[in-house]
Amino acid sequence: MNDAVSIANAVCKGKVSALEVTKAALATIAARNNELNCFTTVTAETALADAARIDKEIAVGNNPGVLAGVPFAVKNLFDIAGLTTLAGAKINAENPPATQDATAVTKLKQAGAVLVGALNMDEYAYGFVTENSHYGATRNPHDLQRVAGGSSGGSAAAVAAGLVPLTLGSDTNGSIRVPAALCGVFGLKPTYGRLSRAGAALFSSSFDHIGPFTGSVRDIATVFDALQGEDDRDLVCTKRPLELCLPQLNRDISGIRIAIADDYFLIGAEPEALAAVQQVADALNVTEYVTIPEAHRARAAAFVITASEGANLHFEKLRSRPQDFDPATRDRFLAGALIPSNWYLQAQRFRRWYCDRVRELFQNVDVIIAPTTPISAPLIGQQTMILDGEEILIRPHLGLFTQPLSFIGLPVLSVPVQRPNALPLGVQLIAAPYNEALILQVAAVLEAKSVVSVNKTL
Amino acid sequence: MNDAVSIANAVCKGKVSALEVTKAALATIAARNNELNCFTTVTAETALADAARIDKEIAVGNNPGVLAGVPFAVKNLFDIAGLTTLAGAKINAENPPATQDATAVTKLKQAGAVLVGALNMDEYAYGFVTENSHYGATRNPHDLQRVAGGSSGGSAAAVAAGLVPLTLGSDTNGSIRVPAALCGVFGLKPTYGRLSRAGAALFSSSFDHIGPFTGSVRDIATVFDALQGEDDRDLVCTKRPLELCLPQLNRDISGIRIAIADDYFLIGAEPEALAAVQQVADALNVTEYVTIPEAHRARAAAFVITASEGANLHFEKLRSRPQDFDPATRDRFLAGALIPSNWYLQAQRFRRWYCDRVRELFQNVDVIIAPTTPISAPLIGQQTMILDGEEILIRPHLGLFTQPLSFIGLPVLSVPVQRPNALPLGVQLIAAPYNEALILQVAAVLEAKSVVSVNKTL
Repeated sequence: MNDAVSIANAVCKGKVSALEVTKAALATIAARNNELNCFTTVTAETALADAARIDKEIAVGNNPGVLAGVPFAVKNLFDIAGLTTLAGAKINAENPPATQDATAVTKLKQAGAVLVGALNMDEYAYGFVTENSHYGATRNPHDLQRVAGGSSGGSAAAVAAGLVPLTLGSDTNGSIRVPAALCGVFGLKPTYGRLSRAGAALFSSSFDHIGPFTGSVRDIATVFDALQGEDDRDLVCTKRPLELCLPQLNRDISGIRIAIADDYFLIGAEPEALAAVQQVADALNVTEYVTIPEAHRARAAAFVITASEGANLHFEKLRSRPQDFDPATRDRFLAGALIPSNWYLQAQRFRRWYCDRVRELFQNVDVIIAPTTPISAPLIGQQTMILDGEEILIRPHLGLFTQPLSFIGLPVLSVPVQRPNALPLGVQLIAAPYNEALILQVAAVLEAKSVVSVNKTL
Repeated sequence: MNDAVSIANAVCKGKVSALEVTKAALATIAARNNELNCFTTVTAETALADAARIDKEIAVGNNPGVLAGVPFAVKNLFDIAGLTTLAGAKINAENPPATQDATAVTKLKQAGAVLVGALNMDEYAYGFVTENSHYGATRNPHDLQRVAGGSSGGSAAAVAAGLVPLTLGSDTNGSIRVPAALCGVFGLKPTYGRLSRAGAALFSSSFDHIGPFTGSVRDIATVFDALQGEDDRDLVCTKRPLELCLPQLNRDISGIRIAIADDYFLIGAEPEALAAVQQVADALNVTEYVTIPEAHRARAAAFVITASEGANLHFEKLRSRPQDFDPATRDRFLAGALIPSNWYLQAQRFRRWYCDRVRELFQNVDVIIAPTTPISAPLIGQQTMILDGEEILIRPHLGLFTQPLSFIGLPVLSVPVQRPNALPLGVQLIAAPYNEALILQVAAVLEAKSVVSVNKTL
């Protein structure tokens, strides 16, 4: 499948109709979803109607939008009018249908994109593997025995497998970046508060972000620009002038100061994960290092706050219907409900300190490079991995390198590093808040040099 | 002693010198503080120097400020340059002296007021009685066997006894209003964030306010106006245009919609406390009632948040030096450290709901009347009181009616109701955020009708 912008261009120029593109996407989904388990719902009927409508708009000469006829799908925590929002939970299946699309869904539809369905995830977005006990595991298109990563596993796998060129996910502690890396696609976690989360089920509000998965940097920039803008429905969504990234994509990056994250981000990873970082650094001629201070504490604090806030959000159901939770989710929420408020407050106190330190750090560097995950995709059902000679649990530790960054809302793009005949791995490009344009410019250079790109699935 | 504005006027007109006023105040303090235990430090030397400097300013024709030569003192949690800030704690006595005055102290000095010392309080501002195990109990000037209330007990008693006409205190759950009521003076807890707290030791940051005690409404308005203004040293202090209250003090109040708080605020109080409310209502011809919804939950939530945040603030010392805390404070902090984060988060969640409900309520009413305390001043050492036929602890319950209001930062003035030959009692005048002017206008009318005023101490 082509990338989103190419499809939109072809549709706009009448080389192909939105209906043809949508039918092709639905056919691919029908053929492949059984083995991949990306989709929990396919909205074929409304998709075909929407596509036909776009074709009519084009026929009468109206501008159908920058994503005209592009099939897309969203993690099943985004509201889709007329569908029940699952957020990966069995309990939620009893809820009435949403009455209104999530703001991000509305914005993509307004740009001409065609919604074809909802995607699998870890229950309540609390996981890094998308091995959902209610709706099954999503399989990694590069090796069906392996996980897609999570919690936005369906979103990453659907793009990697070419079912759709564009999906949306959410990221609390790494839930966009981890599956993007393990499935070998681009995944952007924007600055906290920059994109509206209205109509997306929350997990831990002060950490939750939404963002896109695509197969190219141009697509990421296009979609990010389409999603920008304040929203009365989301009080967290910041009021600030739009700063479109697409027009800035091909700027010269020689003035951008780039450094490799050392210390915490160079230990506790497989050699191949560090080799991927080096591959990106070499392509950019980067030899500088920078230390993000106390990243291990940031991760610990993120765990404490996430577990506490998540437990509070789901507390009533944890009490009344614990048996209906995914066991992997339930046990961590229950533990979260027992965390002393003193830990929670200390974690928030540390967060302010850490945020100030990292802000200072960005006075001397613009973009920081770090691995996305410590390993490539583990096997479905695999419980542990060996890191630094120590056997540790996989589920909590796949976010080792993502948690300390979302903790303070930094914008991060996970780029898929070229690794022929090997499982995908991602590298994080990190900037100061609201500097998405910088990391997209750096990613565009890496893509032009063929250092990062989406590999064909095996 | 005269009120602050009268003193300032006399000083400005040369009828009396600032030095004479200061000497007189120091003499009164020397004569009476031994029995009252209001002051923990008297700054006689710097006070005399400051007073002499003000007299020189006047002599050369400079404007000495609206509080020229007015002696004042502050709760010992305000920084005073050169003195160690105690905040009622023995542990803090080991700290180095403050290098800079608290912003509020600076502002009063800039207005010409003369600082004469620091005042007793409950340890770390956690109490309603000012029975401090390290620095002794402050005694109520109306009956030396009774408490002054707390935690700003020294501040209220010093004004009630005529030691100084003006003091500052702080209010987290009622620590200005409770002692103001029990000592029979005016005590203003302004809107959360309206006055700078820079240089004042915090207790539970999202609840902490500072405010003045005086013997008249005009003094409260004058001091409040002098304290207003944003402050780079306090990020919580809101940036907004000054709205001076003194020029508005004598406005006609016939357009102000006033109602009595019913439900929660009419039960659990001694008949005399409710009679005081009725006395105020009658003077204003108020017959309307209004229900502040779920006030009992607001109080419970305030307890949970205060205990959690206070415990977090003092956690290191609670671990390393528990024996050096006031036992009454320590045990509650330790309990606070054990509160589950889920309770804390639920309390914060409720707080947002409650804030919205009370905001709606102020669409139909401007000023609400409620009792300040359920009883008049109990005896020093008295542990329990009988309310509604039930024997309950005094220490936590003196704030019964104050906690649900500070919980969401509403401006509240406690006015001393005229009760000849009886212990003082206060009534709270409550408004929507930033409407201090309204409650001061209503208070001015009550004062003009002699319904509220400071009684001579017995």
